[in-house]
Amino acid sequence: MDIIVLRQDASEEEIRHVIKKLESRGLKSNISKGTERIVIGVIGDTAKVTEEEEDAFRAIPAVESVVRILKPYKLASREFRKENTVINVRGNIIGGKKIPVMAGPCAVEDETVLMNIAREVKKAGATFLRGGAYKPRTSPYSFQGLGKEGLRYLADAREKTGLPIITEIMDPRDLDAIMEYADIIQIGARNMQNFRLLLEVGAVNKPVMLKRGLSATIKEWLMSAEYIMSRGNQEVILCERGIRTFETATRNTLDLSAVPVLKKLTHLPVAVDPSHGVGKLELVAPMTKAAIAAGADAIIIEVHTNPEEALSDGEQSLKPDMFADLMLELKRVAEAVDREI
Amino acid sequence: MDIIVLRQDASEEEIRHVIKKLESRGLKSNISKGTERIVIGVIGDTAKVTEEEEDAFRAIPAVESVVRILKPYKLASREFRKENTVINVRGNIIGGKKIPVMAGPCAVEDETVLMNIAREVKKAGATFLRGGAYKPRTSPYSFQGLGKEGLRYLADAREKTGLPIITEIMDPRDLDAIMEYADIIQIGARNMQNFRLLLEVGAVNKPVMLKRGLSATIKEWLMSAEYIMSRGNQEVILCERGIRTFETATRNTLDLSAVPVLKKLTHLPVAVDPSHGVGKLELVAPMTKAAIAAGADAIIIEVHTNPEEALSDGEQSLKPDMFADLMLELKRVAEAVDREI
Amino acid sequence: MDIIVLRQDASEEEIRHVIKKLESRGLKSNISKGTERIVIGVIGDTAKVTEEEEDAFRAIPAVESVVRILKPYKLASREFRKENTVINVRGNIIGGKKIPVMAGPCAVEDETVLMNIAREVKKAGATFLRGGAYKPRTSPYSFQGLGKEGLRYLADAREKTGLPIITEIMDPRDLDAIMEYADIIQIGARNMQNFRLLLEVGAVNKPVMLKRGLSATIKEWLMSAEYIMSRGNQEVILCERGIRTFETATRNTLDLSAVPVLKKLTHLPVAVDPSHGVGKLELVAPMTKAAIAAGADAIIIEVHTNPEEALSDGEQSLKPDMFADLMLELKRVAEAVDREI
Amino acid sequence: MDIIVLRQDASEEEIRHVIKKLESRGLKSNISKGTERIVIGVIGDTAKVTEEEEDAFRAIPAVESVVRILKPYKLASREFRKENTVINVRGNIIGGKKIPVMAGPCAVEDETVLMNIAREVKKAGATFLRGGAYKPRTSPYSFQGLGKEGLRYLADAREKTGLPIITEIMDPRDLDAIMEYADIIQIGARNMQNFRLLLEVGAVNKPVMLKRGLSATIKEWLMSAEYIMSRGNQEVILCERGIRTFETATRNTLDLSAVPVLKKLTHLPVAVDPSHGVGKLELVAPMTKAAIAAGADAIIIEVHTNPEEALSDGEQSLKPDMFADLMLELKRVAEAVDREI
Repeated sequence: MDIIVLRQDASEEEIRHVIKKLESRGLKSNISKGTERIVIGVIGDTAKVTEEEEDAFRAIPAVESVVRILKPYKLASREFRKENTVINVRGNIIGGKKIPVMAGPCAVEDETVLMNIAREVKKAGATFLRGGAYKPRTSPYSFQGLGKEGLRYLADAREKTGLPIITEIMDPRDLDAIMEYADIIQIGARNMQNFRLLLEVGAVNKPVMLKRGLSATIKEWLMSAEYIMSRGNQEVILCERGIRTFETATRNTLDLSAVPVLKKLTHLPVAVDPSHGVGKLELVAPMTKAAIAAGADAIIIEVHTNPEEALSDGEQSLKPDMFADLMLELKRVAEAVDREI
Repeated sequence: MDIIVLRQDASEEEIRHVIKKLESRGLKSNISKGTERIVIGVIGDTAKVTEEEEDAFRAIPAVESVVRILKPYKLASREFRKENTVINVRGNIIGGKKIPVMAGPCAVEDETVLMNIAREVKKAGATFLRGGAYKPRTSPYSFQGLGKEGLRYLADAREKTGLPIITEIMDPRDLDAIMEYADIIQIGARNMQNFRLLLEVGAVNKPVMLKRGLSATIKEWLMSAEYIMSRGNQEVILCERGIRTFETATRNTLDLSAVPVLKKLTHLPVAVDPSHGVGKLELVAPMTKAAIAAGADAIIIEVHTNPEEALSDGEQSLKPDMFADLMLELKRVAEAVDREI
Repeated sequence: MDIIVLRQDASEEEIRHVIKKLESRGLKSNISKGTERIVIGVIGDTAKVTEEEEDAFRAIPAVESVVRILKPYKLASREFRKENTVINVRGNIIGGKKIPVMAGPCAVEDETVLMNIAREVKKAGATFLRGGAYKPRTSPYSFQGLGKEGLRYLADAREKTGLPIITEIMDPRDLDAIMEYADIIQIGARNMQNFRLLLEVGAVNKPVMLKRGLSATIKEWLMSAEYIMSRGNQEVILCERGIRTFETATRNTLDLSAVPVLKKLTHLPVAVDPSHGVGKLELVAPMTKAAIAAGADAIIIEVHTNPEEALSDGEQSLKPDMFADLMLELKRVAEAVDREI
Repeated sequence: MDIIVLRQDASEEEIRHVIKKLESRGLKSNISKGTERIVIGVIGDTAKVTEEEEDAFRAIPAVESVVRILKPYKLASREFRKENTVINVRGNIIGGKKIPVMAGPCAVEDETVLMNIAREVKKAGATFLRGGAYKPRTSPYSFQGLGKEGLRYLADAREKTGLPIITEIMDPRDLDAIMEYADIIQIGARNMQNFRLLLEVGAVNKPVMLKRGLSATIKEWLMSAEYIMSRGNQEVILCERGIRTFETATRNTLDLSAVPVLKKLTHLPVAVDPSHGVGKLELVAPMTKAAIAAGADAIIIEVHTNPEEALSDGEQSLKPDMFADLMLELKRVAEAVDREI
């Protein structure tokens, strides 16, 4: 149900105009005339009213404001589906009691380096291998990823270690290649509202990890999940990775309160990426522990055997020994909140 | 020249390690040992050092910070090209003394409605027709645009009115269709960092209007322009359309100071979109005047003959008579800052 | 009228509980049961309901949300007083057709320097002298202002030039001294929610310029004006001076859209401080012109005869000749929007 | 050491001007001429250079930018004091292994209610009682606190329960009263840059909890701590309570990454206030656990026996039984990160 607020001096004709407009959309009205405003409660299936139609009501001169009470997303909402969505990737569960840790380099740079990292993170207890073959770079002069070759290296590493792989898509034209190799398709923060790309990954049968945009509200983020789900793919993992604020001591501000907010609003699993969230090595460990304490269902983290030579995100990548130590600490925090690593 | 700051307790070996790393990239060092920090001034063509390589230096334990002094963009910079870029679209100049006004509906919805709007804005003095055939919508359930049909309506309206058209691209796969019809290709705020799309429009010979992302810094925005220019297309128009802040009284916060900042940093023309920037009808007129006073080279504005029935952005669209009045007011402000409409 | 939204599964008892609570505050209810929510329209003098009481309703388990429709400020609202507030300071009108320009140094540093600046800005057409005797500094080690001595220098400059003076108060204990010398009392951005200080300046009979806080919403800003007005002092001037965003190319982001938003919401005059808003010399001129085009009722600007030696804000202070040139340009823009300088 | 960057076309005379200015402040220069910029490394005690003096350098036309490398705070810095500051309040340690929990109502409203809350939180394991006698309210029409009477109720509750009390100061004129009753003086977010108030609490011998301003950077926050410490009072507790962002699903965005950032930059203890940070009951528990996992040294939390009737912050107050449950959960998380509750 939406609410339409009219100015107190709205004429009877203006009120009738609004009511007629509502009726033409199959909606009924309940009018309350207050001393300072006239409020029309809208009755009927208002979930179908799009934001554009709402805006059209706002364009009526007598209308002061339109308040939407129902959520604009449906499939993604906790109300639509009460039980948590649980996603099974080659036997690894996302959204259950056990918290999968996805680890690996920011970008796939070299076959041997990737294999070494994969072995190290596997040994330390990671259950997925992350790595970008297609890399969104702010500069056209930066390393843009190995493309299909990188996907093949990832697949090799999966074969040797058994770790399923998660990798990013940037362009609908790469979908076939990524479908051939990836176990989870990642949509990066900058593409959270690349709606065409969302529709494409909505039409395939692989889980999608949808990162939060740099300045996306939680509502917009869930609307982007709804885009994917509206095409049939119900296996969406949301991933908090930091939002943009005025603070410059960290790369972004990791919004951990998004985790419990999402657990209430949606049935989808919620992951946290502390590496991008903070952008500094020494902050990764405490913020990963905090993410688990806040209720994260999965962790995605950057690990590199030689951060100094990494072609991307060297500053925030853990070395394998630091990652192994962190995994031990995470187990303790997970247990303290009745979860497992 | 970049500056690398080491901790005061960095060992001689650590200092040598940094210097060697610089030398391996063809760069020289100038060391200053202060009482609390050691500062290495880097000498040579540091513009070539990518952000990733910078990050790799940050990953060295003795390094406390890396300061970049040179701008990371080149082709877009005022230093690379001193004179203003001037773009000629079917005889209409963007970047000159005269300020073109691009007007029309948010979305192309209907052939007759579009034609009426086109005739009205032409009559009032607009020099371009705007209208979206492909629409980025936050909801999958909203009207997504007429696609190719919409492009044809735009072309018809151009034929009847003589107004060149500007329309948005959302997907590389639509480029051929858009190239067939559009005079200026628009990249929307949500695609400002859709790097693949930037590369595609960088390889064609049509002007591109690049809108600022909702939380993009001016530096990132210029880096996105650099993406386009790095592929050959030098005709980029930057368009301020509001950034996201905590303020909710307006849809976005129109950052007009971006106009003079950009005029100093780059030779590219700067447009302002007050309609999206403020999102409310009554704010459009004062903010358009302010945009011109701040030095905008072009204005893009939403006009609709029937905002109440618009399928998109009804709340912020001017009616033709309001637009005609505004054009008269804009002429006066333009003259007061030695420009013309 | 406020609206209270209950969960659809709220029991009859829970609904009755809410209604009773409303009745205990003298308010009536109008209930609409939708398919997904129950909406209670509250009827009566809801303006009296404080935000705390609203919060108390939110604490009821069955309540999903509480929507406030009426504005929380009254005396400051355009609805309370339709005509613009016009303030007369020693014959200079603020809030009329003519736009007063308040110019001077950030801080009062020296008697002779101040006198020279006062004479220069007077000559160029400024109608008020600005200058801080008490300075809010982020560092305890910075120059904190000359205090009472600075006030006396300002009064001397007023005597010699005839320019009324505006100066900042930081502490209720300085009120007597400031009342003795100042013509307008300024409340700085950092004190916008120093509620005790607001109450103090609300009880005196001098105009108050209330700067917007760095992250204050327009609603909060008007609530702070309401604080002052609630104690009797109706002569409040609002001053936009930039808000904090993620952008670092400017010191703050000058939110010029606040000007037309405020002109609609309140009858109080609206000033703009472009110097603090942008923090860079070359941006001051275009943004001052934009402020006037956006509808500003007054301008406050930093001018210094020797910015290199200024003890504060040297980077953003205009030299007298630049200021004189700007004044000529401002006159033209003012005329173009039917105002005068 | 600071760095001054000059434009590449700076003349010899301009360079000499800058060097002379540095020398007049007792500083030496180290010049590196790059191909695109001239960089002057400043040698000497640059910590003494105030931000105003830096700005004065920026006002020199040939200067392009000034980079500050040293931190502008000293007493608050980890470099000045390596060991953690440990504060002893009536035998309760803040800054040690054990994490004190400060609990109580937002505002002191009534003697009996306060006593009941105090007893409940004591029973559940809280070690401090919080409660406001002077309340900063956005509306002048809201309950402003009981003042001195409230302080007496707090002192009574301390006597009965043994819990030391923490309460907020808003006005220097209330300092005597607060000194008489409080064990810790709280500076609220809105007063973080009320510099006069900071100086006052810097001159007394009671610990001060300094809350982060709504849009304060971590650097500014530490500068405010420096204000207090510069007057002699070294017992400052920093308290993260959420910053203002574009997200509206939570009252503020609790920036937990501030905790590990601060633990690196300063020796002062760091508290977290999850109640104000999130503003919603159901988010308080997960975010408090996350705060402890992130390394918080203390927790301050709102508890009320009857949130529905609270005169303030009803929506975010825990009931005593929820608080008691939370304390048990916190103990487990604390142990998992080698701390104690």
